[in-house]
Amino acid sequence: MLNPAERSALQRALEIAAQPGLPYGPNPRVGCVLLDREGTILAEGHHRGAGTPHAEADALNHARNHALNSTDASTAPTLHGATAVVTLEPCTHTGRTGPCAQALLAAGVGRVVVAHRDPNPVAAGGVELLRDAGIDVELDIPADLAAAADALNRGWGHGLRHARPLVTMKLALTLDGRAAAADGSSRWITGEAAREEVHGLRTTCDTILVGTGTARADSPSLTARRPDGSLHPRQPVRAVMGTGAFPPLPTPDGAGEAILLPTRDPSAALEDLFARGLRHVLLEGGPTLAAAFLRAGLVDELIVHLAPTLLGAGRSATGDLGISTLIERLDLELLDSTPLTSPDGRTDLRLTLRPRAA
Amino acid sequence: MLNPAERSALQRALEIAAQPGLPYGPNPRVGCVLLDREGTILAEGHHRGAGTPHAEADALNHARNHALNSTDASTAPTLHGATAVVTLEPCTHTGRTGPCAQALLAAGVGRVVVAHRDPNPVAAGGVELLRDAGIDVELDIPADLAAAADALNRGWGHGLRHARPLVTMKLALTLDGRAAAADGSSRWITGEAAREEVHGLRTTCDTILVGTGTARADSPSLTARRPDGSLHPRQPVRAVMGTGAFPPLPTPDGAGEAILLPTRDPSAALEDLFARGLRHVLLEGGPTLAAAFLRAGLVDELIVHLAPTLLGAGRSATGDLGISTLIERLDLELLDSTPLTSPDGRTDLRLTLRPRAA
Repeated sequence: MLNPAERSALQRALEIAAQPGLPYGPNPRVGCVLLDREGTILAEGHHRGAGTPHAEADALNHARNHALNSTDASTAPTLHGATAVVTLEPCTHTGRTGPCAQALLAAGVGRVVVAHRDPNPVAAGGVELLRDAGIDVELDIPADLAAAADALNRGWGHGLRHARPLVTMKLALTLDGRAAAADGSSRWITGEAAREEVHGLRTTCDTILVGTGTARADSPSLTARRPDGSLHPRQPVRAVMGTGAFPPLPTPDGAGEAILLPTRDPSAALEDLFARGLRHVLLEGGPTLAAAFLRAGLVDELIVHLAPTLLGAGRSATGDLGISTLIERLDLELLDSTPLTSPDGRTDLRLTLRPRAA
Repeated sequence: MLNPAERSALQRALEIAAQPGLPYGPNPRVGCVLLDREGTILAEGHHRGAGTPHAEADALNHARNHALNSTDASTAPTLHGATAVVTLEPCTHTGRTGPCAQALLAAGVGRVVVAHRDPNPVAAGGVELLRDAGIDVELDIPADLAAAADALNRGWGHGLRHARPLVTMKLALTLDGRAAAADGSSRWITGEAAREEVHGLRTTCDTILVGTGTARADSPSLTARRPDGSLHPRQPVRAVMGTGAFPPLPTPDGAGEAILLPTRDPSAALEDLFARGLRHVLLEGGPTLAAAFLRAGLVDELIVHLAPTLLGAGRSATGDLGISTLIERLDLELLDSTPLTSPDGRTDLRLTLRPRAA
């Protein structure tokens, strides 16, 4: 059980780990908060990407600098009996940085709160190492915070387990199953709330992937924008996959890197992205690409914005390009459905699904 | 505000008004419970259809019979200062029965709880009549009970306002918008929970309507069945509309009356049903009929069972008959979405929608 100070500290550790300036990619995002015996924050730390200090080391450094700069030795913080609150299990391996579990031990920390076990077999074992040394390790985390700690590194964890990026497919559908292609052409289908959510979704992934057909038809900028149109500080890599010709993507200031994957094979595309250190791909269209990934069993999750509209016989050529003619029957598991009400009062549904076979 | 005894009495009044043996149709279903000053039930009554006593008269009769049969006059119930709890505003008109508001006054009732105002201008005014006579009339009803009182006579109220039956369209759709025809052919699309719900829905309507195409293709029995296959005590009229030939509907013991509406015009069909005293039509297919009603603006409500399945290229000829090729774009309002989880763990969604223009 976490005491209130530890709960707040974990919330803070999750917050600093999730800062928009921090990269996704091959390293996890981690935050660490050090508390004294009274529950006061001694120092914070977070990981800034491959080759930089881990969150625990960063926090210990901050605590030591604070102690050195303190003029009165009696008020300088001590780490003896302190509690380290970390969003991910402290590592035990020596890579470009030393093992964090050892560093916490050496600093004299008395208790360690771990929000999420490390799925990486090379780095895991920190909990056991600390417990063997007599440290009190707390793994009983409130469900909301444990889920947030897991979500923080979804792509990274998926990459460790499956050696390919996590693939989230985003679709905007009408009630009669008409798919809209990425970006522009879905504007007339879903409401404002759903469209804004797409931009939020883009900031949680490190890559947006579209086919050359969509790049040609829509000229999408594939940026994560705020409601006022300005660019979010976190921008995904913009990947276009396929062998067709298409004009360069519009590239406003601050947009993510644009890359071309000259293949029609979803596996090859994911291999390429994984090698570049990318771990969570948002598949935004079009239907041919979507069908290719579904057929290959390479979709891990679907986010469907369902518009309560029957598009009927008057639908446009774009809306008419459904993926349904390109795949065989696919049963999905419905994980969640949430209404999205726009300021004009119209309500779409967000469905979260995953293929049953996956 | 209702006191606890009145709240319980209203629940009871709603229960007796909704008994499966009572007819839907041109008269409302009404329940009445009489309480003494201590909140003890003196008598109950309900309306049994056109030409029979109203619920209030029925309850007053029961109270009087009880008094006559009581051997000890001191324990015989008196109605002076009693409370009448009624699901619908007491009427003021003399039809085949006398006005109920007058009867309650004459009986010496001191307070009347009214769950729903009478939408019928000929019969309304009971509340004002009672208040003018100094009776305490309570209209502040808990929202759940007020909604139940409204739902009890939805079709009847709609008929008063629009002079045609209420039309609920039921669709089973896949995520890629494939519609299944009525009854049998939807079995392979939605789960057990959704299929059971259809039978529940049938008991809340007085008429099921299908086209001759569906009657020919599916030979549906159009009965409301319990999970064990037995017939529910309340069975809707089974109407088939159109000009095509079709074999007689299978008619198990206890099934509702079967009628033919030899027209392809939704307005004419509804006029015919209304003239027969029917007030709530469940439209179950097929796509041609559904599209005709949607085009005519004669659908008041849609219940969509959405299966989390992409039916894809391998879909059957039946599933391929979507209504979407038969209508122009139609924007709907999403009123509710509720997951329906079947015993095997699969979850469909029930969407309740209504046309935006309606």
